Amino acid sequence: MTWKETIESIGPLNQEAMERCTERWNSIAKPLYAFGEFEPMTIRMAGVTGNSDFYVKKKALVIMCADHGVLEEGVSQSNQEITKVMTEGFTRMECCVSVMAEMAGVDLFPVDIGVASDLIPEVINRKIAYGTKNMAKEPAMTREQAIRSLEVGIEMVEMLKEKGYEILCVGEMGVGNTTASSAMTSAFLNVPVASVTGRGSGLKAEGVVHKTKVLERIMTSYTFDPEDPLDVLCKVGGFEIGGMAGLYLGAAANRIPVVADGVISCVAALLACKLAPAAKDYIFASHLSKEPAGKLLLDELGLTPCLTAGMHLGEGTGAVALMPVLDMAMGVYHRMSTFSEVEIMTYEPYDENDIGKK
Amino acid sequence: MTWKETIESIGPLNQEAMERCTERWNSIAKPLYAFGEFEPMTIRMAGVTGNSDFYVKKKALVIMCADHGVLEEGVSQSNQEITKVMTEGFTRMECCVSVMAEMAGVDLFPVDIGVASDLIPEVINRKIAYGTKNMAKEPAMTREQAIRSLEVGIEMVEMLKEKGYEILCVGEMGVGNTTASSAMTSAFLNVPVASVTGRGSGLKAEGVVHKTKVLERIMTSYTFDPEDPLDVLCKVGGFEIGGMAGLYLGAAANRIPVVADGVISCVAALLACKLAPAAKDYIFASHLSKEPAGKLLLDELGLTPCLTAGMHLGEGTGAVALMPVLDMAMGVYHRMSTFSEVEIMTYEPYDENDIGKK
Repeated sequence: MTWKETIESIGPLNQEAMERCTERWNSIAKPLYAFGEFEPMTIRMAGVTGNSDFYVKKKALVIMCADHGVLEEGVSQSNQEITKVMTEGFTRMECCVSVMAEMAGVDLFPVDIGVASDLIPEVINRKIAYGTKNMAKEPAMTREQAIRSLEVGIEMVEMLKEKGYEILCVGEMGVGNTTASSAMTSAFLNVPVASVTGRGSGLKAEGVVHKTKVLERIMTSYTFDPEDPLDVLCKVGGFEIGGMAGLYLGAAANRIPVVADGVISCVAALLACKLAPAAKDYIFASHLSKEPAGKLLLDELGLTPCLTAGMHLGEGTGAVALMPVLDMAMGVYHRMSTFSEVEIMTYEPYDENDIGKK
Repeated sequence: MTWKETIESIGPLNQEAMERCTERWNSIAKPLYAFGEFEPMTIRMAGVTGNSDFYVKKKALVIMCADHGVLEEGVSQSNQEITKVMTEGFTRMECCVSVMAEMAGVDLFPVDIGVASDLIPEVINRKIAYGTKNMAKEPAMTREQAIRSLEVGIEMVEMLKEKGYEILCVGEMGVGNTTASSAMTSAFLNVPVASVTGRGSGLKAEGVVHKTKVLERIMTSYTFDPEDPLDVLCKVGGFEIGGMAGLYLGAAANRIPVVADGVISCVAALLACKLAPAAKDYIFASHLSKEPAGKLLLDELGLTPCLTAGMHLGEGTGAVALMPVLDMAMGVYHRMSTFSEVEIMTYEPYDENDIGKK
């Protein structure tokens, strides 16, 4: 589907499935609401799939990989070669997320959506260009490229749905992409770019100061059309960010729960929700990144992370880290005895916000 | 070993193992410190085991189970029968933690340290009494019983070490035990008991008000010897809380990493650290409970939780939920390529607190 058709086909959550899922949770022999965020999370997943007897066993992680022209400005301590090395490494056991995904039973799909060099054929090739332009000098991409990046993401979801995947994790790799995501966060949330700029893959203090100065210069050189979210992607975005936004839109249209990772994937989620507000209901948080924009973005998306270990690795590692914990919640949901089965009393639902204190 | 011998045999962390573990983490091909809390957590585990090449594959959860005389005061909406039903249920697939532990590869050891009725033989029988006394009328237990509860915990660790377990999770079951843990938290931290009193297994607003009144009356009726942590356990504690404190002490003496669960297990950790400050280095947080004392206790223990999903289920569920995520971190630690292997540059360590901003 085109990006416009995809956006138009995003419907509301299935309320009946959510009600049945809520009833099931409340009948399980445990204190009410005791599984915390995993209860509303799985209830919403029931609404996404339209089925209270759903599973999220077959799991995919799509890693959108691309390079950034802004690297010329010295905004990262890593060199561009690392994007290629890591993207190819995802197909072997050479990256952190490869090891984690194998342990969590998640299948990996690295996509070259704009890496600056040619890659091995094991990486899915949807290259839009050899990296974005240097946004310190000119817009990062054309409007056609921005739309193409969304549609690559949508296409990936359609392919994975075909293969029977029941949940999608979103990941990225691209040296320089915390610079793009800081600029996009600043533009979307109207906050000073310095407040949402961090170390990326590991800048030291003087590097963060330089990166912030570069970003401040970039932000003063553009004005953004507040009615046109794609304008932000074109001027200061990245191909992998557009690709991830497409994953969220495609997942929403295809009614598959989609799990965000850290800040860069959350910026992409915000872009998707600006293009299609209804997509919000289909997106799930995993962890709170240590990057400064992490909490701001999750709050804006109305999402609560379950993992707050201060991870900042990228690659989809936070989303994958959530999977075995989600599996346990689903295991309890499907396999646990109900109150009537263990022959003890049930609890009557109550208002979680009313604690009887002022 | 007796509780006094156990306390005396707790030594310092092995600094050399911690340094080797730190070096290994910094050589892995990923941004520095990018695994967040899992890096200091596993580094400290290396210090616990004295080995930077350690594993935490063989996992046990000890669930200390006991009843509380204070239940007579109407402090819970659950009845005492539930302690028996759940404790026996741990030996079958009838409790949430049984399902989760099976999925996480954790072996369960439920211990009857003071349940008010006789139980099936599959539960380890170390019953001290048929529940504590009603602390609203008299001290919950004698000093001899308090010491016995510690030594039951220590004995369990010795038995599990013999069986080759490499990490211990701490859990509990006991209707009424959030009342005991609120009283102990108030006594240890010198905070109003109302500020650390919550719903327990699911009180509604009026129930929380009543529980708070009962607790306020209890707290005014005792004075605690600030030099004698066992005095708090005797007057307002529980057998399972003493048993868990014994697990922490025994784990520290036997150099096995031990993982806390929610508030009740954290109160027990605080008791253990008051008895033996050196035990602190051997205790690891798992999750932040939704009970109001959760954050206070973790802060006092100097521990950072990795899971903040608002779970409040007890049974050791939070500790078990952490295990597959810890497994992933250990998988990366043991299996990941180093920078030299993938032939990209290494990063130079930096000060995580210096971000170049004021």
